[in-house]
Amino acid sequence: MPRYKLTVEYDGTEFVGWQWQANGISVQQVLEEAVAAFSGETVRVHGAGRTDAGVHARAQTCHLDLAGEARPDVLRDALNAHVRPRRVAVLAAENVADNFDARRSAKARIYRYRIVNRRAPLALDAKRAWQVSRPLDADAMALAAGQLLGRHDFSSFRASACQAPSPIKTLDALDVARDGEEIQLTARSESFLHHQVRAVVGSLVWVGEGRWTEADIADTLAARDRRRAGPNAPPWGLYLEAVLY
Amino acid sequence: MPRYKLTVEYDGTEFVGWQWQANGISVQQVLEEAVAAFSGETVRVHGAGRTDAGVHARAQTCHLDLAGEARPDVLRDALNAHVRPRRVAVLAAENVADNFDARRSAKARIYRYRIVNRRAPLALDAKRAWQVSRPLDADAMALAAGQLLGRHDFSSFRASACQAPSPIKTLDALDVARDGEEIQLTARSESFLHHQVRAVVGSLVWVGEGRWTEADIADTLAARDRRRAGPNAPPWGLYLEAVLY
Repeated sequence: MPRYKLTVEYDGTEFVGWQWQANGISVQQVLEEAVAAFSGETVRVHGAGRTDAGVHARAQTCHLDLAGEARPDVLRDALNAHVRPRRVAVLAAENVADNFDARRSAKARIYRYRIVNRRAPLALDAKRAWQVSRPLDADAMALAAGQLLGRHDFSSFRASACQAPSPIKTLDALDVARDGEEIQLTARSESFLHHQVRAVVGSLVWVGEGRWTEADIADTLAARDRRRAGPNAPPWGLYLEAVLY
Repeated sequence: MPRYKLTVEYDGTEFVGWQWQANGISVQQVLEEAVAAFSGETVRVHGAGRTDAGVHARAQTCHLDLAGEARPDVLRDALNAHVRPRRVAVLAAENVADNFDARRSAKARIYRYRIVNRRAPLALDAKRAWQVSRPLDADAMALAAGQLLGRHDFSSFRASACQAPSPIKTLDALDVARDGEEIQLTARSESFLHHQVRAVVGSLVWVGEGRWTEADIADTLAARDRRRAGPNAPPWGLYLEAVLY
């Protein structure tokens, strides 16, 4: 059976997350129903990573197998027609080898977190970024972020429900950049623990507020205890930016 | 009576436009009702420019007079509380002199138009940008835009309903810049005719598609005939970016 790789953008606001759940509509469900509407086939669409409710994707990656042959561009356009009016867009469809696995073949994931640091609520970026009223020192956040780079036990920045076999991950990049009132944090790792990026962002915001120092981040990491870290940043600021193969 | 200047951001999607209309909710209505809820005063909020239904603002400017004194930051925060859940945010409130007039005192307006040039529909930027499927040559658009710079009779790029006393305007800047799949057009003028930016963008997209040349833009401008220009670009790609005083 031919295997296809899809690159998918979505607005996470209306979804319970990437993965099927009983309590609402998931991106996976929308895609699988679109595939069925197009091909008549009931298939599983396998994603590179689960995103939580409210989390967005600029380029989630997934794979699926179809019994029938379809030209990749026809598949892409047909899926885009069938996902309507859901806020999901198939940016690209490609033929891939049978051993390509969206999750297992991934070499790295890149997540981006958007903070808008201002007093006024967000009209244009509501549910697209986290509005933080207190002035944030982005330079202090960038410095503290350096403490988390490399291979560590990230138990302090891990959801209690996380199913990963090990809390040890290698954080290859964690950049903090301010552009006017917006602060973007970009994290790159082969894979992430559940809630890792949001827990890290929540803790770095404490540094930005002056409530914590760089040393507090180092101590929290060393403690390997979820109760030590700051609260999770809200999901609506987070974007799965890219999956690298 | 103390006069206040407000800088306002809004998502134009749910509004009939800036100005009061019988057929739906306007940004002006939302702001005037918020002022009444805060102060008990029924006042007119005067905007720097009318924006059409669906057009967004990153920084619309307006002024209002209140009988009672209010600290500008208290006014800003109170209005932001009262406009909820509408997608309007007061970014700043300032005391201004009695002779400040949001519309008449403005030295220049800057509008930005966002095009996303790709095949797939927009999931994250739905109603925030114009998705154009056919590949656009942004360099050709930039070159043709040069034909419109300066003082001209813009009758060819003017809505039939336009109420401006004269079709002669001076376009100080019209930049076209591509960044990946996004093309942004930025226009600056002391003031604009009704639909001027959208008519210009619609015509420049014809140039980007190769359907028109730079000479067609020059000919259309010279014709001073609305029937000669391309169709208006849709409102949801347009942002009132700034009003300069």
